Amino acid sequence: MSVREHVVALVGGVGGAKLALGLARVLPPEALTIIVNTGDDFEHLSLHISPDVDTVMYTLADLANPDTGWGVRDDSLQAMGMISRYGGEDWFHLGDRDLGTNLLRTRWLRDGLTLTEVTRRLSQALGITCALLPMSDAPVRTLIDTDQGTLAFQEYFVRERWQPIVTDIRFAGSEAAQPSDAVIAALEDATLIAFAPSNPFLSIDPILSIGGIRERVEQTQAPRVAISPIIGGQAVKGPTVKLMDELGVDNSPLGVADHYQKLIDGIILDVADRDLCSHVEERCGIRAVARQTYMTSTADKVKLADALLEWVEESLT
Amino acid sequence: MSVREHVVALVGGVGGAKLALGLARVLPPEALTIIVNTGDDFEHLSLHISPDVDTVMYTLADLANPDTGWGVRDDSLQAMGMISRYGGEDWFHLGDRDLGTNLLRTRWLRDGLTLTEVTRRLSQALGITCALLPMSDAPVRTLIDTDQGTLAFQEYFVRERWQPIVTDIRFAGSEAAQPSDAVIAALEDATLIAFAPSNPFLSIDPILSIGGIRERVEQTQAPRVAISPIIGGQAVKGPTVKLMDELGVDNSPLGVADHYQKLIDGIILDVADRDLCSHVEERCGIRAVARQTYMTSTADKVKLADALLEWVEESLT
Repeated sequence: MSVREHVVALVGGVGGAKLALGLARVLPPEALTIIVNTGDDFEHLSLHISPDVDTVMYTLADLANPDTGWGVRDDSLQAMGMISRYGGEDWFHLGDRDLGTNLLRTRWLRDGLTLTEVTRRLSQALGITCALLPMSDAPVRTLIDTDQGTLAFQEYFVRERWQPIVTDIRFAGSEAAQPSDAVIAALEDATLIAFAPSNPFLSIDPILSIGGIRERVEQTQAPRVAISPIIGGQAVKGPTVKLMDELGVDNSPLGVADHYQKLIDGIILDVADRDLCSHVEERCGIRAVARQTYMTSTADKVKLADALLEWVEESLT
Repeated sequence: MSVREHVVALVGGVGGAKLALGLARVLPPEALTIIVNTGDDFEHLSLHISPDVDTVMYTLADLANPDTGWGVRDDSLQAMGMISRYGGEDWFHLGDRDLGTNLLRTRWLRDGLTLTEVTRRLSQALGITCALLPMSDAPVRTLIDTDQGTLAFQEYFVRERWQPIVTDIRFAGSEAAQPSDAVIAALEDATLIAFAPSNPFLSIDPILSIGGIRERVEQTQAPRVAISPIIGGQAVKGPTVKLMDELGVDNSPLGVADHYQKLIDGIILDVADRDLCSHVEERCGIRAVARQTYMTSTADKVKLADALLEWVEESLT
């Protein structure tokens, strides 16, 4: 069976969206399922906000703000301006168009639709043809234990700009949560499982924390490949390196490969880290290869998706 | 005691906001309480929307859209545009700045604040210094029985553009609702109660339907004056005349005076209806006077507020 028949990507926010876009450009829609972290979801201003789902959705719909990677291009902040004027909570910026998405999501969830169904409706309306699936319909909330106490994910990430020192990360609700039928079916049919270059601890671990997802990834016959989110000792975006340091983990692609032990058969490092490939292979007993993983243009994203598929076809099947 | 010591105005939306603005310009803030209809309130897109409260608030804060009388000046419709794109409910237009107000109201109500306290916070932040009070903190919902079935107020008014034939009007929840302490105190201290030129059936009756409000208006020692919303046989705005016709009520200032029987001591008609004054006086046993009630500019609003206060001082005390 071809590796390309049913690719499943596990993704977080901005970095994950880049890989998702590359895959969406090189695979037919029925051959791609994107499973998105919802541990960052939260209630804010009475809205159900799903930051990673929206980042991926806007990216695939070619609506994302190119300057930030999240939010809607050319969006305005009129509603937030009024909220500031009233002295309301304005640390989490929601553009006006983005508010439209969140208002309708909240309305449809209150009407009894699942997050999976809501996401399907929203993404189809934006012309997205591949499957975009929240990791679960049940609430799972990433909690960050820090030197300043326990913070909800967005408090840590946005309000405190990931400056507190992290001591532990927990996923409240994950024990009770189940993957949706669509997530289970995708994992069971998978001919390739790709771990996007998202933060392993904050973006991918919440997905793996859902009962039945980690086991299915561990037991699948399909090849499983991660793309390191660390390039030359730096995170492309966000707190990955700082966080791994605080957690006492080797903050290099080796630490990433270690963290995904039993879950991956191979890892793609950036060309800047090509010297680490043999070390990763020896220490982790998996395959490693160096490719250009730093993605700016759409061409970069397509190129990495192509490189991923080709490497798996050549070396992991 | 001076008539001007504590003026209470009962108001609905656009027409009510005009009188409220006039009174706010001629009275010191501590001498004015505006009690606003909340029978039009509804849940939409998971938000608690208080159309009349916001119309009055934006008008007093000099933020209202001058073209419509409601909504915020120079507002945009980015969020609604996204909602339309998703195929969501877009018949009730909420501008982006207006959404900021409604998001924060909804958040604060969910936090357990009363609508009175929320309105106080919002209006103070906008620099409003007089008291702006929702008629009640309990939900009261105006329901319109029509030839097309029973409609919620905004379905009738906005979605169906008040075209259905009205057979009855009900105020769901009004029997259980109580006025807030602030509303009770304002009515008990009132030195003048003014009925704004709002729709008597749709905007003022909901206020009077709250247990204890009608009785206090009936029994007060203060003079009580209505301003007719009908000028020369036409409603300045909205369905007043059409509705009175459908309800089998005389759709003239006489019908308005009749409707407010026992509740008012005098009524101000427009100069266009000066010939009706003596007829109203004879038939209803109240005083009637003709003044310019059609208000466009702020000067018009101030002039009517002045005329109201002067007439009461001269003729009703």
